[in-house]
Amino acid sequence: MAKKIKVESNILKKNNLTAEENKKYFRDHNLFVLNLVSSPGSGKTTLIEKTIEDLQNKIDIYVIEGDQQTSRDAERIKKAGAEAVQINTGKACHLNAVNIKKAVDKLKPSNNSLVIIENVGNLICPSMFDLGENLRVVIISVTEGEDKPIKYPNMFHSSDLCLVNKIDLLPFVEYDIEQTLDYCREVKRDLDIMKVAAINGEGMQKWYKWIADKSGLFKI
Amino acid sequence: MAKKIKVESNILKKNNLTAEENKKYFRDHNLFVLNLVSSPGSGKTTLIEKTIEDLQNKIDIYVIEGDQQTSRDAERIKKAGAEAVQINTGKACHLNAVNIKKAVDKLKPSNNSLVIIENVGNLICPSMFDLGENLRVVIISVTEGEDKPIKYPNMFHSSDLCLVNKIDLLPFVEYDIEQTLDYCREVKRDLDIMKVAAINGEGMQKWYKWIADKSGLFKI
Repeated sequence: MAKKIKVESNILKKNNLTAEENKKYFRDHNLFVLNLVSSPGSGKTTLIEKTIEDLQNKIDIYVIEGDQQTSRDAERIKKAGAEAVQINTGKACHLNAVNIKKAVDKLKPSNNSLVIIENVGNLICPSMFDLGENLRVVIISVTEGEDKPIKYPNMFHSSDLCLVNKIDLLPFVEYDIEQTLDYCREVKRDLDIMKVAAINGEGMQKWYKWIADKSGLFKI
Repeated sequence: MAKKIKVESNILKKNNLTAEENKKYFRDHNLFVLNLVSSPGSGKTTLIEKTIEDLQNKIDIYVIEGDQQTSRDAERIKKAGAEAVQINTGKACHLNAVNIKKAVDKLKPSNNSLVIIENVGNLICPSMFDLGENLRVVIISVTEGEDKPIKYPNMFHSSDLCLVNKIDLLPFVEYDIEQTLDYCREVKRDLDIMKVAAINGEGMQKWYKWIADKSGLFKI
């Protein structure tokens, strides 16, 4: 077991060195980089599509898509109007900093842009891997039950914003959204939280204002 | 990287040895053991609660609950009327065979029982770890989008049955259930598939009949 922990620690150390290089690159090119994490199926891709549609006249957007298999999400993003690179992780359960370094080399985002990383759908493993992003955004949907923040605390604790998505489905599910917000605050008192429905745009203006304010790259 | 692969291979080898011990124990005690895997929030616990409610007069049921943190699910299962043990995996992203061996030592299920393992919510890592179970059941819900089988093929390929849950929400989501079934078959041609809504019991009789037929321990 000690050997396993040592290897894990070496892997994380190596990852963090590359994450630091990524951070420097992002800073040098004045890029604002978001790392989106969630369970599979919480609506990350739809959220990014809607964000591209609504913000592409204000800022250049580039997307890095992570999945075990398929390039479906990158294709969806390109249709939505942004440049995208797909990373297939194979058996791996998260993106790492080297994946991002290579993807950025391909994408070559113009200075002063927004780069959105859609991580592999997984509420556990991606929490341990710094990609060099500016901020991390965890997405949960109202169909997943209230208790995800306390069941998967590492992910919520390492995030800067929680988007509670699919609020259009609230009338049809047994779900106490206030309980979810309380659990979020229990795990991280100062976590920013917003309620959205990417599919119909509800609540999305606050999300756009959050990106504008945090990035300083455009105004809402 | 070679070192990482070697350590992983050693971990899996060790896991598989314990899984074989578990298999022998299950066989010797005529236990039928199901390993339930899914994304977080696809409704595994609700499905188990409903199953206990409907089958407890036909067979003794024991439950092993896996989560990173909290013992909420074991408490829910005990309220539903079955004995349960909670395993908290901490930072780990899956249950392993040693977890199950220890849990079975605590539970001491009576001979000829059904043992249900609720794995950690994660569509990736649990696919690699044999727990010694008889059969593996992957659960997806209609709110997660159609493409999960092809995005996370290892999990679907290693499963014996796919339950498509939350079909009560079909009228309220953009979701092509036939497309999901096609993707399931694309990954594994002979995967059993059933549509259910654990919350209202729709389709659950087929699931119970599947358990009865596969286990040979009771009749529906």
